[in-house]
Amino acid sequence: MSTTLSPATDTPPRHSPARPCRVEDVPQWDIETDVAVIGFGAAGSCAAIEARTAGADVHVFEVAAAPGGSASWSGGEVYVGGSGGTRVQREHGFEDSTEDLYTYLMMAGGPGADAERVRVYAENAATHFDWLEAQGVPFKGTYLPGKWIEPTTDDTLLWSGSEAAWPFSTRAKPAPRGHTAQFKGWGGGKVLMEKLCARAEALGAVVHCNARALSLIVDKTNRVVGVIVRIDGAERFVRARKGVLLCAGGFIVNRDMVARFAPGALACSEVVSGGNDDGSGIRMGMSVGGATIHMDQFFATIPFFPPESLVKGIFVNARGERFINEDAYHGRVGHYVLRQPEGKAWLLVDNEIFGRPVIQPDIEVAAVGESWSEIERELGLPADSLVHTVTTFNRHATEGRDPLFHKATNWLRPLTEAPFAALSYCIGDLKAHAFTMGGLHTLPSGEVLDADGQPIAGLYAAGRSACGLPRWGEGYSSGMSLGDSTFFGRQAGLAAARR
Amino acid sequence: MSTTLSPATDTPPRHSPARPCRVEDVPQWDIETDVAVIGFGAAGSCAAIEARTAGADVHVFEVAAAPGGSASWSGGEVYVGGSGGTRVQREHGFEDSTEDLYTYLMMAGGPGADAERVRVYAENAATHFDWLEAQGVPFKGTYLPGKWIEPTTDDTLLWSGSEAAWPFSTRAKPAPRGHTAQFKGWGGGKVLMEKLCARAEALGAVVHCNARALSLIVDKTNRVVGVIVRIDGAERFVRARKGVLLCAGGFIVNRDMVARFAPGALACSEVVSGGNDDGSGIRMGMSVGGATIHMDQFFATIPFFPPESLVKGIFVNARGERFINEDAYHGRVGHYVLRQPEGKAWLLVDNEIFGRPVIQPDIEVAAVGESWSEIERELGLPADSLVHTVTTFNRHATEGRDPLFHKATNWLRPLTEAPFAALSYCIGDLKAHAFTMGGLHTLPSGEVLDADGQPIAGLYAAGRSACGLPRWGEGYSSGMSLGDSTFFGRQAGLAAARR
Repeated sequence: MSTTLSPATDTPPRHSPARPCRVEDVPQWDIETDVAVIGFGAAGSCAAIEARTAGADVHVFEVAAAPGGSASWSGGEVYVGGSGGTRVQREHGFEDSTEDLYTYLMMAGGPGADAERVRVYAENAATHFDWLEAQGVPFKGTYLPGKWIEPTTDDTLLWSGSEAAWPFSTRAKPAPRGHTAQFKGWGGGKVLMEKLCARAEALGAVVHCNARALSLIVDKTNRVVGVIVRIDGAERFVRARKGVLLCAGGFIVNRDMVARFAPGALACSEVVSGGNDDGSGIRMGMSVGGATIHMDQFFATIPFFPPESLVKGIFVNARGERFINEDAYHGRVGHYVLRQPEGKAWLLVDNEIFGRPVIQPDIEVAAVGESWSEIERELGLPADSLVHTVTTFNRHATEGRDPLFHKATNWLRPLTEAPFAALSYCIGDLKAHAFTMGGLHTLPSGEVLDADGQPIAGLYAAGRSACGLPRWGEGYSSGMSLGDSTFFGRQAGLAAARR
Repeated sequence: MSTTLSPATDTPPRHSPARPCRVEDVPQWDIETDVAVIGFGAAGSCAAIEARTAGADVHVFEVAAAPGGSASWSGGEVYVGGSGGTRVQREHGFEDSTEDLYTYLMMAGGPGADAERVRVYAENAATHFDWLEAQGVPFKGTYLPGKWIEPTTDDTLLWSGSEAAWPFSTRAKPAPRGHTAQFKGWGGGKVLMEKLCARAEALGAVVHCNARALSLIVDKTNRVVGVIVRIDGAERFVRARKGVLLCAGGFIVNRDMVARFAPGALACSEVVSGGNDDGSGIRMGMSVGGATIHMDQFFATIPFFPPESLVKGIFVNARGERFINEDAYHGRVGHYVLRQPEGKAWLLVDNEIFGRPVIQPDIEVAAVGESWSEIERELGLPADSLVHTVTTFNRHATEGRDPLFHKATNWLRPLTEAPFAALSYCIGDLKAHAFTMGGLHTLPSGEVLDADGQPIAGLYAAGRSACGLPRWGEGYSSGMSLGDSTFFGRQAGLAAARR
């Protein structure tokens, strides 16, 4: 061998999320509690509420200076329905059966969808909405029609996924299921989290901010019995009699982890995070043998609308061919855009529907012309490729149908009013927004599972530290992560408290 | 909550791969060695050879009754080149620079390609071939032109990947790099493994067959110091002074693990395995905090040729559109076929190139007709979709070019000789063959890394128990797994022995 590989050093840091501490090495217990919750975001707050309600002592450790986690930077939208419809769905005439919700979520979960988890959620999502209201989260109760990335009005109910789009609409009756906390402007998540965190504290959860969890503590049988937390610069040994709950978010801001586990997400320049999704919760779970699943999956949205008129445009690739029904959820469209050959894709529009995307107004206009053949030439596409695509689309659209990609009728309109343009969604021009979906493998109860699928005693996870309902980039819908985090955060809090 | 979640039971089996044993609980050491190798396949045999050559005591534990692992059921093809070419490449006029091999392997590794690993391999692959010959593996030294899934002649050198196909050929000068052990018929892997295993034994490695590794043994610092093995029905405690090497294969025969970690592979009905790729090596690594990467990735081939004339056909989907340059590696084509909408794809052929695929002769002929519009109607495709695709392809092929999919000139021929046919590669009709590519995260030295990227002292992995060169289904080439397993098995053996 001409190359000598130098072995890496063997000296890890004193306490790291990747290495558990043995209980024999604990000098003293600084804090004793029934349940230790790591992270005070959507999952952690709901876990704390349920664990306190069930009578357990609860300490919450939040790395940030303030509560709320990434959820407080979100739109505050929760994906719920089923059981005939939530109060708000029913008031606005949308019936929503549990089976339709179940079928949609199973499709949205992709090849790895977890039928047991989806079933529990579908059966209980509507009452979960009532529960959120009962915690004090305000929902105005109004319906906002149309297609939005996130509402800037204070309305409640909106279409937030691919429900009305092919192929989802062919198997599950569509209904709007995004339910947004009442707030004007961007960022209803702030309201949602203020209420949930306040509720947890009112119920007696002891909350430590600026508190970084360093390492899990295990006994001889690998049971998790506590956690080391750094508070005010000092290591505190926390005993958790009933369990430790990892609700510490995903790993999108940890670029090393993204490169290692979800390298596809490196194509996305923007992160959807409050800033602390560093994967430490997931790494702590792995340190005691917790299995991770679907770590490669991520949300990747390309907010090419509003204005919603742009949804009437068509995406083409470097072959001049369409590749997606453009009325699918923007995160699904995003994944299809990112995987096109040579990283090239354009949105074709005509004068009637043109508008600058509100979220990326400086989008590159790659070509403008009086005819589609001019656009085709300007983009350097093979002769007659784009022209054939647009001609076919226009002919079908005039007939009110899209036999190739099944875009819904209300978004079909021939692109015939010159001038025409191609907006660039090529790598380099587009700004994709990402968060990670993979995480610890858990039961719906939040129990973390090892490589054999057996629970690790004393360890629970929820929210993006776990792999929950969102586990397939192409299937995500807005509100699914908050719905999952709040609902399964509750389950984990309950399961630990009842232990 | 209307649903009560029942927590799972807490009683795991006494010893399981997913739970390490503490050294305090070891009653006695039944076997003491420097290096314990789990699995006597491609990686394990080469690890044993190098560790013995470096002077270490080596015990090998193989779960099967006979040595060889899955490699002995393979074609016995090793993907090597670079350094100007192997002896055989040079003899047949193929120069192969290290940079071209490096570039190709980086492309083949996909978004998660490991530059350090690829660099080490590219620089040493040609001498690795010499090393294999020096161990006694016979290579006839002849070149077999054409396009094969696996040679049935006893020739050495063949084109075994996507080297000559777009987009690979645009960035790396192509060369044939598959080097096959001399054997007539299917299954040169038998010869390869007989030689390597015999060599390891001749060097003094002590080999235990029918020996199932149950659980790793760790000390207080989480250092791996041994392994529990069941031999002849009894648990044996094996002390490994220098390290335990996990060379126990992938997880394709463990359907629970496939469903959990690589659910996309469930679409493949056939496994590529000697039968013991049960993931136990990976699970043992996870049990001590080893990180896994790219667990969702898998090899999925659809052996639609030979006869190689079929490569001149074109694949279309339910939109009547092409989706891949058909001269790409069959495993790459396989992944594209599997992801088509509604799981539908057909290979279009004319009378001139028709032949029944040798490996799936009972392939469903979904349509036969005197014109392409007849085929289009029989398949139920949108009017003028398939006809336009074939017309465009034929026009370009007549001109000797494929501006849309960049199929290489030698595979371009217009499909104009009636009758025409469509062979079904729809889900249900196709038989895809799969193995898993995800595994433990390691350094090129084989050291297993934890969730923070730090080595776990005393633990090494190679072959499909690790995530090596093959880590992206769309980029695999025949011989890459054996090349990786034998080469990085050697590195792990060396690194452990030198510890």
